[in-house]
Amino acid sequence: MTVSSPRKALTIDNINPHVKEAQYAVRGELAVRSEEYRAKLGKGEGKDLPFDSVISANIGNPQQLDQKPITFFRQVASLLENPTLIEHEDVLINSLGYKSDVIERAKWLLKEVKSVGAYSQSQGAPGIRESVAKFIERRDGYPASGKDIYLSNGASSGVNTLLHIMCAKPESGILVPIPQYPLYTATLSVLDARCVPYYLEESQAWGTNLKAIEESYNKAIEEGTDVKAIVIINPGNPTGASLSAEDIRAVLKFAAEKGIVVMADEVYQTNVFLGEFISFKKALRDLQKEEPGKYDHLELASLHSISKGMVGECGHRGGYFELVGFDPKVAAEVYKFISIQLCPPVLGQCIVEVMVNPPKEGEPSYELYKKEYDGIFGDLKARANALFEAFKQMEGVECQSPAGSMYLFPTITLPKKAIEQAKKEGRQPDEFYCFRLLDATGVCVVAGSGFGQKEGTLHFRTTFLAPGTDWTGRIVKFHKEFLDEFR
Amino acid sequence: MTVSSPRKALTIDNINPHVKEAQYAVRGELAVRSEEYRAKLGKGEGKDLPFDSVISANIGNPQQLDQKPITFFRQVASLLENPTLIEHEDVLINSLGYKSDVIERAKWLLKEVKSVGAYSQSQGAPGIRESVAKFIERRDGYPASGKDIYLSNGASSGVNTLLHIMCAKPESGILVPIPQYPLYTATLSVLDARCVPYYLEESQAWGTNLKAIEESYNKAIEEGTDVKAIVIINPGNPTGASLSAEDIRAVLKFAAEKGIVVMADEVYQTNVFLGEFISFKKALRDLQKEEPGKYDHLELASLHSISKGMVGECGHRGGYFELVGFDPKVAAEVYKFISIQLCPPVLGQCIVEVMVNPPKEGEPSYELYKKEYDGIFGDLKARANALFEAFKQMEGVECQSPAGSMYLFPTITLPKKAIEQAKKEGRQPDEFYCFRLLDATGVCVVAGSGFGQKEGTLHFRTTFLAPGTDWTGRIVKFHKEFLDEFR
Repeated sequence: MTVSSPRKALTIDNINPHVKEAQYAVRGELAVRSEEYRAKLGKGEGKDLPFDSVISANIGNPQQLDQKPITFFRQVASLLENPTLIEHEDVLINSLGYKSDVIERAKWLLKEVKSVGAYSQSQGAPGIRESVAKFIERRDGYPASGKDIYLSNGASSGVNTLLHIMCAKPESGILVPIPQYPLYTATLSVLDARCVPYYLEESQAWGTNLKAIEESYNKAIEEGTDVKAIVIINPGNPTGASLSAEDIRAVLKFAAEKGIVVMADEVYQTNVFLGEFISFKKALRDLQKEEPGKYDHLELASLHSISKGMVGECGHRGGYFELVGFDPKVAAEVYKFISIQLCPPVLGQCIVEVMVNPPKEGEPSYELYKKEYDGIFGDLKARANALFEAFKQMEGVECQSPAGSMYLFPTITLPKKAIEQAKKEGRQPDEFYCFRLLDATGVCVVAGSGFGQKEGTLHFRTTFLAPGTDWTGRIVKFHKEFLDEFR
Repeated sequence: MTVSSPRKALTIDNINPHVKEAQYAVRGELAVRSEEYRAKLGKGEGKDLPFDSVISANIGNPQQLDQKPITFFRQVASLLENPTLIEHEDVLINSLGYKSDVIERAKWLLKEVKSVGAYSQSQGAPGIRESVAKFIERRDGYPASGKDIYLSNGASSGVNTLLHIMCAKPESGILVPIPQYPLYTATLSVLDARCVPYYLEESQAWGTNLKAIEESYNKAIEEGTDVKAIVIINPGNPTGASLSAEDIRAVLKFAAEKGIVVMADEVYQTNVFLGEFISFKKALRDLQKEEPGKYDHLELASLHSISKGMVGECGHRGGYFELVGFDPKVAAEVYKFISIQLCPPVLGQCIVEVMVNPPKEGEPSYELYKKEYDGIFGDLKARANALFEAFKQMEGVECQSPAGSMYLFPTITLPKKAIEQAKKEGRQPDEFYCFRLLDATGVCVVAGSGFGQKEGTLHFRTTFLAPGTDWTGRIVKFHKEFLDEFR
């Protein structure tokens, strides 16, 4: 045997460059540092820190914060995990507060999946896909089919799947809103495909601007990009916007004209505080009714998730996407691609089912379900408004009214000296601000540069999930001190 | 607005060619047809079919067949899903058969994850990773650290992550055993990287042959391939082999000499019927002790899963991989890559924890746990041997003794006429045989061509998970009739 090589096979210089290029600030250095603070405080250390708790306002993780899971969902889940409990119906009902519809639902789901410990079909259990289709029919007033539903591992894996299918070569491009949830740019980096950015209109409640989209599209085409799709996040992440019917129709018409796919990320569809949610599927079917034949070629993929809304079950990794107008041969490749990873978590699939088919009025669990659902919605709305009011007190901070999703994305204007200091430290100015905020207050938010923003503007994204108002006070106080320091 | 384009944006000819190239027979056309038969029979139709049940012997999916989940695991899971049950300790213990250690474990896990509905750290909950590290220490007798453990979405997502990191360009190559579990070749196709096949030795119980590995490696280097790693599946899938200590040491020495990563797929580590399981980690540490300094540069990634073994919780999508000897900068890229998909299912993480840290002797749940565990192991071994005996009766079928994993992978010799008929139908001969078997008996297996095999040889892979012996009889009877038809 020859002398062994002292080299590592893998170094930062020879691994996949496209993975290296990918950026995902939501769980980046700031988040890692906040976890270190949390661990320190958890061990009773950290007396040197100027705060006594870490507030994770960087990520939409409701149950890590205040949000309680919905009782019906978790009661069903407990029976799915231990089906022998179903044999003790009297104990469940008389001693443990389960209602009969919980038991019925668990029995039905177990019939559909056999065991939550068994692989399902790669596309998801057929009965659950049918249930999703019925939900879409009720929501939109147009037919849907379980054959077109693909259950997924959160919406993120759905996005990953669709981008994998569409991006055929380095010239493949996807129109992505800026600011955006960085899953899109990160996945495009990994795929070595092009992000074609189009800017949202902050001054118009972060709506889409068709002119901006067209300009981006035309520029990309000129540069030789093969534009395959447009991504829309509605309600918006990180912007907190809720799109108007006009904006949605304009995007659909544009995509139909250019012959590109519409990818509608609708995971915040129940988090709407202003106006109403209109699904891209409904808007498309409306257009097809108004002008028969004109939109039939259009391909739409719309995504939903159990992670957000009043469900907040991110840890269970459930979601789905619906394919509308896709060539069956392309859909078959989608199926094959997801089959390589076998199937999405089966319990997550079951939680998708209870999300889309919750207790109905008159059913035993309905009253509590409604109370919990409305309570979460009301709390989110109240906190969004409280945070919005707090931002109003902050000099140089401007924020659009809370309209949807779980985020506010205020503009911040920072003093020149702060911007210079950031440059010295090798950071973006808003990133510098966010690190200072974390170090001073324990509040973790994400810098606007992690989502993309118009040049010369600075933002940060914060969730409004954390309970109480103490932490908003911490931000207001920090901001004043920060301005004083760098004025 | 111009007239809309009648073209679809996505066609089979313009989507990602690397996705199209990927093949994953385990869930391919045969599996799809078997599901159609199952659905037909489920609806009370299918009186025209020559069988009354479908036997899914194509995929290692224990709980879809006979295997019952382990009570301790599922009792804990039920409390994680509905933590309010913990307030009813008396009911749980006196009326529902829960033991105190179930409740203690659920409380501890809830402290670690806060809620199974909350995202965890992307690498997995720290306390669970520590628990995995302690398991590895007990198993191997060498230290391990939670910092090096990455919880995953089944082992499959771990493989996907590692291949994404290692494959930097189209010339990047990975040594993959043939026959192999097609996750490897499919993922390499998607990544547009090279599979460097090395053949296993059927005549030597499907062991590794260092000479064959060296020849493949040298040929790849000559062809300009940048070989980054060698994959070992031990116990073997689809082969059912269990590697000897000598084979394992030879692979480690080879990898150290060539400066390539060892990727040890050890998901069947408890499914060993002949000899004993030796982890690559232990073998590496042994070598390092014997010859200090000589193997310190070697990088090893070893994977485990809750899907197999006596756990069989595939639907929960849990697993982990341990990185040994990786450059911290490379590990940081692994972390970033997985963070884009947020985190593995948290309940799956919790089931990893109970798998690696089951009830100990003397604890209240131990006796039942041991009985269930041993029962499953005994049943698997008995069925493996019964199937092996059945194959002995079949003309032209030869099979290695069952040694490990959940599969047998017999060689089949088919009559010339059958091979000609297969060609006429545009199928591989073993695929043709497997379709005929499914159509005649309802038994679904996977053709050897789906895993790769030496040219001129034919095989099929069958699990030995399905209960009863009726279905092995169906195979024996079909095989005789098939030979008679084409003789």
